[in-house]
Amino acid sequence: MNSRMLITGLGEFGLIKRFRRRIKTDPSVIVGSGDDCAVLRFDRDNYQLFTCDTIVERVDFTLKDPAYLIGRKSIAVAVSDIASCAGLPRHCLVALGLPKETPLKLIDNIFKGMLDISRRFKINIAGGDISSAREIVISVSMLGVVEKKYLCLRQGAKPKDIIFTSGSLGGSGRGKHLKFIPRVKEARALVKNFKINSMIDISDGLCADLGHILEESRVGALLYEGLIPLSKEASGLSDALYTGEDFELLFTVSLKEAKRLLKSKFSRLFKPIGEIVTKDQGFTLINKKNRQVKIKAEGFRHF
Amino acid sequence: MNSRMLITGLGEFGLIKRFRRRIKTDPSVIVGSGDDCAVLRFDRDNYQLFTCDTIVERVDFTLKDPAYLIGRKSIAVAVSDIASCAGLPRHCLVALGLPKETPLKLIDNIFKGMLDISRRFKINIAGGDISSAREIVISVSMLGVVEKKYLCLRQGAKPKDIIFTSGSLGGSGRGKHLKFIPRVKEARALVKNFKINSMIDISDGLCADLGHILEESRVGALLYEGLIPLSKEASGLSDALYTGEDFELLFTVSLKEAKRLLKSKFSRLFKPIGEIVTKDQGFTLINKKNRQVKIKAEGFRHF
Repeated sequence: MNSRMLITGLGEFGLIKRFRRRIKTDPSVIVGSGDDCAVLRFDRDNYQLFTCDTIVERVDFTLKDPAYLIGRKSIAVAVSDIASCAGLPRHCLVALGLPKETPLKLIDNIFKGMLDISRRFKINIAGGDISSAREIVISVSMLGVVEKKYLCLRQGAKPKDIIFTSGSLGGSGRGKHLKFIPRVKEARALVKNFKINSMIDISDGLCADLGHILEESRVGALLYEGLIPLSKEASGLSDALYTGEDFELLFTVSLKEAKRLLKSKFSRLFKPIGEIVTKDQGFTLINKKNRQVKIKAEGFRHF
Repeated sequence: MNSRMLITGLGEFGLIKRFRRRIKTDPSVIVGSGDDCAVLRFDRDNYQLFTCDTIVERVDFTLKDPAYLIGRKSIAVAVSDIASCAGLPRHCLVALGLPKETPLKLIDNIFKGMLDISRRFKINIAGGDISSAREIVISVSMLGVVEKKYLCLRQGAKPKDIIFTSGSLGGSGRGKHLKFIPRVKEARALVKNFKINSMIDISDGLCADLGHILEESRVGALLYEGLIPLSKEASGLSDALYTGEDFELLFTVSLKEAKRLLKSKFSRLFKPIGEIVTKDQGFTLINKKNRQVKIKAEGFRHF
């Protein structure tokens, strides 16, 4: 292989796949690299969830954003990962990379945002680490817990499942990415009342994240444009399909469970947007003119 | 407060203290922010250890360093934190921040270094996260486990304790910081054979890290220059006192245990370098001319 090859040629997900193949884990790792959280053996009834997320200046926020919301977001993205496995967040560590010339006021406000959202979700900030860096980098690692019977993963979607999403999509560009509320409560309500076959949070974009479910579950999907709940801040459908950071839940349930859900009080919170089909049928969007459009499972990519 | 004040005015440890004061944790956090690892409730006999460490290009390594050793170091520093609590490392997550123009070969080698050291210490790489950044930033969060009866902390040193260190000090500048072997085996041997009153790993420098023990244990110390085991790569005593990244163990035991240790087969591995005194006696170095020199508990600081 050409040693001058750059990581951009492989892309973020190509890079992750390349590494995943080479990792071996022991049986205490129930689910390793490749889902929103690592799932670890814990006690008789529960698994431990372990995840980390990094937000970087210029990529995930700018210094024009309120520092309070930057701190809040750094924790919220990890909470969203725990939520997508239907778990409860418990503890986190915060690793801060900071330029020397960072104003103290900025860090105080970042920290206030972290403290407030941690309090809201009953998360212990159990420690951290500060180092100097050229730009602000915040890595949050988080532990959560989920009952074995409630664990949700990207894998598990079955043909004929109905695809649902929470909230509305495509609004992240207008600031929602800083203010979103991780869907812990909603995910917990779902698993306590319905049998969820697969779940993910929309961080890379609807198409990319549904693509993750399709890949891990080895199935295809049909999405109905007319059913996708557009955020009023979205400038059009493509914002909902391809812009990441909605941090809404995306999940699939059997047709029977879908009917039950739609008749329940939860029908207000979750909207059906399509259905799972077999893998050979691919990933298709039915647009408002009832035409079929092939979809590429792409969204925000770091490279 | 002047809002233009920069974090450099407060320093790394000032910043950490500032945050620590404001964090509240529930009883499932046995030890929170301020030690090498967070110590979490786990099961009847064991605690869970949770730590994270970030290494940053230009601060902790340069691109002239072999990429394999950079990857190795990113994991090893976290293992060293687990060792300083006398635990066994179990699982880790790797968060990579990478510039778009990073050569694939470099990342492959970084990853190879991570895999090899993980295998050596039986650590599961349970997942990770890749994002674009202006420079290479590697954050590793790690989980470990330690028997309740064996847990070592920075607090617990008592006046008349003897201070010991493993290995030799001051060689990190000449490449040892990339190749060190985290002292898991040594720490485990210690706790299984002796009653250790306090322990830390030397990451910020002997004086700074002994300073952490003194602060958390509310005691003072006498160090004997003539006893400090200088690395043959050290250019002088100040390398041993103030240069970080030796990643050796620094611990204190009662005089009785010290005598036992010095008579045992472990006397080869650990050298006595001083003693704990009361807090009001401060932190003093007895130099080779038998003169007392007051020591500032300083070492490598990020700001």
